[in-house]
Amino acid sequence: MSNSYKRLNKDDAAVLLVDHQTGLLSLVRDIDPDRFKNNVLALADLAKYFELPTILTTSFEDGPNGPLVPELKETFADAPFIARPGQINAWDNDDFVNAVKATGKKQLIIAGVVTEVCVAFPTLSALAEGFDVFVVTDASGTFNELTRDSAWDRMSSAGAQLITWFGVACELHRDWRNDVEGLGQLFSNHIPDYRNLMNSYATLMAAK
Amino acid sequence: MSNSYKRLNKDDAAVLLVDHQTGLLSLVRDIDPDRFKNNVLALADLAKYFELPTILTTSFEDGPNGPLVPELKETFADAPFIARPGQINAWDNDDFVNAVKATGKKQLIIAGVVTEVCVAFPTLSALAEGFDVFVVTDASGTFNELTRDSAWDRMSSAGAQLITWFGVACELHRDWRNDVEGLGQLFSNHIPDYRNLMNSYATLMAAK
Amino acid sequence: MSNSYKRLNKDDAAVLLVDHQTGLLSLVRDIDPDRFKNNVLALADLAKYFELPTILTTSFEDGPNGPLVPELKETFADAPFIARPGQINAWDNDDFVNAVKATGKKQLIIAGVVTEVCVAFPTLSALAEGFDVFVVTDASGTFNELTRDSAWDRMSSAGAQLITWFGVACELHRDWRNDVEGLGQLFSNHIPDYRNLMNSYATLMAAK
Amino acid sequence: MSNSYKRLNKDDAAVLLVDHQTGLLSLVRDIDPDRFKNNVLALADLAKYFELPTILTTSFEDGPNGPLVPELKETFADAPFIARPGQINAWDNDDFVNAVKATGKKQLIIAGVVTEVCVAFPTLSALAEGFDVFVVTDASGTFNELTRDSAWDRMSSAGAQLITWFGVACELHRDWRNDVEGLGQLFSNHIPDYRNLMNSYATLMAAK
Amino acid sequence: MSNSYKRLNKDDAAVLLVDHQTGLLSLVRDIDPDRFKNNVLALADLAKYFELPTILTTSFEDGPNGPLVPELKETFADAPFIARPGQINAWDNDDFVNAVKATGKKQLIIAGVVTEVCVAFPTLSALAEGFDVFVVTDASGTFNELTRDSAWDRMSSAGAQLITWFGVACELHRDWRNDVEGLGQLFSNHIPDYRNLMNSYATLMAAK
Amino acid sequence: MSNSYKRLNKDDAAVLLVDHQTGLLSLVRDIDPDRFKNNVLALADLAKYFELPTILTTSFEDGPNGPLVPELKETFADAPFIARPGQINAWDNDDFVNAVKATGKKQLIIAGVVTEVCVAFPTLSALAEGFDVFVVTDASGTFNELTRDSAWDRMSSAGAQLITWFGVACELHRDWRNDVEGLGQLFSNHIPDYRNLMNSYATLMAAK
Amino acid sequence: MSNSYKRLNKDDAAVLLVDHQTGLLSLVRDIDPDRFKNNVLALADLAKYFELPTILTTSFEDGPNGPLVPELKETFADAPFIARPGQINAWDNDDFVNAVKATGKKQLIIAGVVTEVCVAFPTLSALAEGFDVFVVTDASGTFNELTRDSAWDRMSSAGAQLITWFGVACELHRDWRNDVEGLGQLFSNHIPDYRNLMNSYATLMAAK
Amino acid sequence: MSNSYKRLNKDDAAVLLVDHQTGLLSLVRDIDPDRFKNNVLALADLAKYFELPTILTTSFEDGPNGPLVPELKETFADAPFIARPGQINAWDNDDFVNAVKATGKKQLIIAGVVTEVCVAFPTLSALAEGFDVFVVTDASGTFNELTRDSAWDRMSSAGAQLITWFGVACELHRDWRNDVEGLGQLFSNHIPDYRNLMNSYATLMAAK
Repeated sequence: MSNSYKRLNKDDAAVLLVDHQTGLLSLVRDIDPDRFKNNVLALADLAKYFELPTILTTSFEDGPNGPLVPELKETFADAPFIARPGQINAWDNDDFVNAVKATGKKQLIIAGVVTEVCVAFPTLSALAEGFDVFVVTDASGTFNELTRDSAWDRMSSAGAQLITWFGVACELHRDWRNDVEGLGQLFSNHIPDYRNLMNSYATLMAAK
Repeated sequence: MSNSYKRLNKDDAAVLLVDHQTGLLSLVRDIDPDRFKNNVLALADLAKYFELPTILTTSFEDGPNGPLVPELKETFADAPFIARPGQINAWDNDDFVNAVKATGKKQLIIAGVVTEVCVAFPTLSALAEGFDVFVVTDASGTFNELTRDSAWDRMSSAGAQLITWFGVACELHRDWRNDVEGLGQLFSNHIPDYRNLMNSYATLMAAK
Repeated sequence: MSNSYKRLNKDDAAVLLVDHQTGLLSLVRDIDPDRFKNNVLALADLAKYFELPTILTTSFEDGPNGPLVPELKETFADAPFIARPGQINAWDNDDFVNAVKATGKKQLIIAGVVTEVCVAFPTLSALAEGFDVFVVTDASGTFNELTRDSAWDRMSSAGAQLITWFGVACELHRDWRNDVEGLGQLFSNHIPDYRNLMNSYATLMAAK
Repeated sequence: MSNSYKRLNKDDAAVLLVDHQTGLLSLVRDIDPDRFKNNVLALADLAKYFELPTILTTSFEDGPNGPLVPELKETFADAPFIARPGQINAWDNDDFVNAVKATGKKQLIIAGVVTEVCVAFPTLSALAEGFDVFVVTDASGTFNELTRDSAWDRMSSAGAQLITWFGVACELHRDWRNDVEGLGQLFSNHIPDYRNLMNSYATLMAAK
Repeated sequence: MSNSYKRLNKDDAAVLLVDHQTGLLSLVRDIDPDRFKNNVLALADLAKYFELPTILTTSFEDGPNGPLVPELKETFADAPFIARPGQINAWDNDDFVNAVKATGKKQLIIAGVVTEVCVAFPTLSALAEGFDVFVVTDASGTFNELTRDSAWDRMSSAGAQLITWFGVACELHRDWRNDVEGLGQLFSNHIPDYRNLMNSYATLMAAK
Repeated sequence: MSNSYKRLNKDDAAVLLVDHQTGLLSLVRDIDPDRFKNNVLALADLAKYFELPTILTTSFEDGPNGPLVPELKETFADAPFIARPGQINAWDNDDFVNAVKATGKKQLIIAGVVTEVCVAFPTLSALAEGFDVFVVTDASGTFNELTRDSAWDRMSSAGAQLITWFGVACELHRDWRNDVEGLGQLFSNHIPDYRNLMNSYATLMAAK
Repeated sequence: MSNSYKRLNKDDAAVLLVDHQTGLLSLVRDIDPDRFKNNVLALADLAKYFELPTILTTSFEDGPNGPLVPELKETFADAPFIARPGQINAWDNDDFVNAVKATGKKQLIIAGVVTEVCVAFPTLSALAEGFDVFVVTDASGTFNELTRDSAWDRMSSAGAQLITWFGVACELHRDWRNDVEGLGQLFSNHIPDYRNLMNSYATLMAAK
Repeated sequence: MSNSYKRLNKDDAAVLLVDHQTGLLSLVRDIDPDRFKNNVLALADLAKYFELPTILTTSFEDGPNGPLVPELKETFADAPFIARPGQINAWDNDDFVNAVKATGKKQLIIAGVVTEVCVAFPTLSALAEGFDVFVVTDASGTFNELTRDSAWDRMSSAGAQLITWFGVACELHRDWRNDVEGLGQLFSNHIPDYRNLMNSYATLMAAK
């Protein structure tokens, strides 16, 4: 077992959002839709917050798969957006790979729909080219838990690291003192329990 | 068995929101926090949308229970808000009961935290006084599923009707033609799957 | 408790299929999609097999809700099909109620999407008018189990009988001798375990 | 609500075992097969132990449904055994009903496969004729939990009492002093946790 | 449906603890042992706190069932304690019934192991004699969830009210002002989430 | 960890279907029967669609295990079909291994019943001989989830890749443009949610 | 990853049964007691059937842990039985290790209670000494699923193979022709679904 | 795979308790609060019992995260307690690392809230520096099971050993004879089922 800690570094990380399309989202059943929506938007917000280069890609937007989720399009209005003409594995699309390489980053944070295809295929391709790949498990979705477990096993066995959006945010931020307000806001917006803690606290402090 | 359909009527219904406080929410574990937050806000939005008289109440706001969830306070800035000095059953508080009766409505739509106490007690009291009570099950939360099932059984046996925020909205609206845009927006804001359907549809129609 | 057995009778029963539309089906998450698809088609096949009058209705077919599932349209090409212009409760639509009453049947077998609205509302209305209502629980779907449980409680408390498509088929058929082949085929087509039993048996018998 | 306690009485109870056939058992998926087998045999053993008149019936033994489970046939070698020629509801078979009535008992303890048909139909028929019906829920099985919940609701609403084999045994026995050894043996044979308690105890006592 | 609210009243309630014995507890598998232990002790503590007359009973303490849980024996050192010589239904034991009646209370709060026997039988007997019975569902345990659901249905159908220890405490206390400290301590001792809220609050207040 | 991406290639892959027999299927309880049937037929259809050499094998067809599922026999009427006379591990049967080697493929896609035996044993044997093995997890079934998890761990630890039929199809197809119609039809036939997307889309496009 | 298939061989395997004691069994809650009892006895029966050397060991039999399950004591009346005076890890007991080594086998099949201690500790010790260890996951039990998953991960990471009793039996037997009757009987005794298949088959064949 | 058994040794182990704060605990939803509280206190008690050097650390005690759980503060009144001013990964705090290194131990037993951040980050850092890390899975908590599974996979893949508090206690103690009373008391205090066994045993022995 390798004992070097492959640690996310905000200066060396890029985010890949693969096929979060309005039609494909109806296939996601391994995670509650309210929670999934929140996780995907949280990942988007943290990418924005840490100013990570972000690349969007979709598959067959004009057909039944539907358009990219509008919130993502708005959040990343200026990001590279590769509407793939047919490649299932985004890594088979030269524009996508070129966009990834143009970031100059070696750590790839990836999420998408569905996990065992749109996430797993580029993950395995990127690992084979020497990238460090961090799969955001809770911002990726698929048909059911059996499918998810298979996909996780395949990616983990190939060397991918499984992580959640909250883990990504914390590992990138390193120290609350870098910006207490900003990180706190991110968590308050996407973790109801944390928001409650903050509201309770703020009310009590205001009452002093 | 009674065969008369006790049907929600927007001209005869009021909404009671009981003890959705930032501290008490940490007790809710029978429903995922992302989903629960969404359901409570959906119920608030529909109360606003249908202009139903709404009454807020809290228990011991200054102590560990914490303040009312700020979003509710903002949505219902002008609503009667009874901070109970100690009564556990809101119906034991005269101000609360008077506020309810002042609405002149006979159908009470109730939700709160925790289900077996803050919801069940006023539900049983109101039923005993002849009100029709509609318990919004998915905007009410408690410690675990065993607790919830017990509370539902007690309320249902006493004549309460179990319903969800979506059921309430549909039963009140009656006919989409009353306002397609408004109801559609409510659903789009609170049902991710429905939002996806609408986005797919809108994109396709725009492409024509 | 009433002790008279309200028993399905193929000469006195009609089937109501409410809002099984391609868009709305993406909302159904209380039952696995493979299983749900099978159950809906099984109910359709049994309605056809027993030659029960069947009424189809949809809500906003031209919008995001999508068209009626094509298989149902084909199976019931000549059945009354009421595309409701806006009424959420199908029973609020006169054409629908007239179609139901035109069958002359007093036993209504109902299924639809979503359970707490499209099924529950006409169920409660029909019960109030004195019909016997049989809710086909496994051919009806909704957002999650909490929602389903609420809807079942509301309908059962009002006097509806909860039943599955298999229960409906068996209660209508009464005696295998009425048509062993036909009923066996229905089960073989929609119950994989039963199909396996039949295939094992047939192979062994053929080997004699 | 009736407040009279309908209590099992060993002098007024009969047991009906409906369609526990080797083929049909492959349809049972709402309960683990090891547990289900144990429960069915426990019910058989208690019927024998309390010398309750017991009636067996099967449906289409010569076809894919398969023969009666051999252990039941052996335990009740002399019991009335009605191989129904086609009736799905055993109560539609005169031989079966006559056998039930010949016992002269008013309390019917019933179990079978599958719950919503082979158990529910005769339960509803017997209730309509004034019998007290006790459905042994854990010795009855069906396709899945959704199906089971529907069937329980239908039977309970009609006045059936839901009970388990252990509840039946305890309610019939009334007092351990009637036969400590016999009841203890029944529990030791069918409740592993109880057997462990007894073995621990016996070992310690022997060591004194 | 009856619309009178059968509400717990500390001046008219007694607590019955049935067969919480060290051996029998190994049979309880419908609830996690840490949670169950906490719930039983919470019920004991609230009985003590509200000074409710409490009656203990056991079945065959000298055999494999094992002795009463020592904590209960200590908490209720002076309470009537009926070691039943053989009656399975505690209500069949005259000493037990006499002890109940000697309290002069009409509301019985009952919990025990196992739910479908030791709780259900005396519940049904007491209901038949006109008592109001409140079954503490989370301080009662049994073999599995299927068994529990059957038992709840039987008791609820007969008129018992299903409630939890927290619901009992709140319904008895009525108003926090009766004793904020005492009730708060009870909750802090038995609800980890509530204890956390109180500790967070106390720390912040102390820091002012 | 190896970082080379072992990627399915339709020119280097063969499919092995092991013991999908009508009797053995009654043992499968880690996956819903409707879903399992669909997954097995989907795997068969994709093997046919990609014209992958496919090998069928069974164990004791003439006994209780029952015949090969008829649909598989029909789909692969001309495929090598090895009815093993007794070997439990198909790889112990020379005819089977010869058939595999005769395909000249190095990538083996395997599924069967039951997972920990009929799938795991040949998987481990083939890996030991240097084949790349892709276990189709959702077209393989066994007694329960505990058993499945053990089997997955054993195969994954030995180097097998866990994948689903949908992952196999996508990895083989590479690019939608190779045949949009064909792949779309495969998905529409076996993924109800995808079928709904396609039907919604088609209806809207037709309406333009 | 090693690609050599570590395959069970009946000439090189021994069975270790660790601490299946009547008291400790009450701690097992990650598996239903009916199923667990069956699995343990199935493992014992297969050890006997394949005449594998078997070693029994217990911890503190005279105290609360209770005696070895009597059925195991009877099945292996002549097997080495090491009642450890205090060592928690059986491998720390010289008599136990000597008994293992005296068998001359290099493949150890191990099961016990509780998984993360009584199974994991000797497994890790034996692996460190070069044995091949096969952990029988379904004949080992512990407090809950979280505990089990941790233990499995630790053992699997150290090189143990996770397998079930059915997998062990099949891997040892290799070919049904070695003894169709014997293996069939083993399966019929411990797999209800298989017993049903055999009974259905036998009945049909007898009817020819 | 490494075959050396990395075994806990009480002379070479230290305990790290990370961020068990009253506010953060409200985020833990992958484990029941009663069970989680018990596990954390059990780990604390065993650290005390084995006199392991223990280090406490918190994050932002003065804000919404809340203070360290009081019970831990009391149990370890003299232990190093590092209130981190901002570092999310405790290993980024020099005081913390110095405190760890000052113990001179190479085996680190770690638990905390939340698992994927407060536990996983220092675990990965410590592994990278050559420590052996034992993650106490059941005394660590996080948002949900999906999150937990991701975190476990990441830590296990990096070489951490997953273990529970009970496994830690048993591996450290080695032999009951080192102190039967002490270990027994620890288990009795934190394992209700074990306490029951001991109480049953003690009662029987006293009765001799």
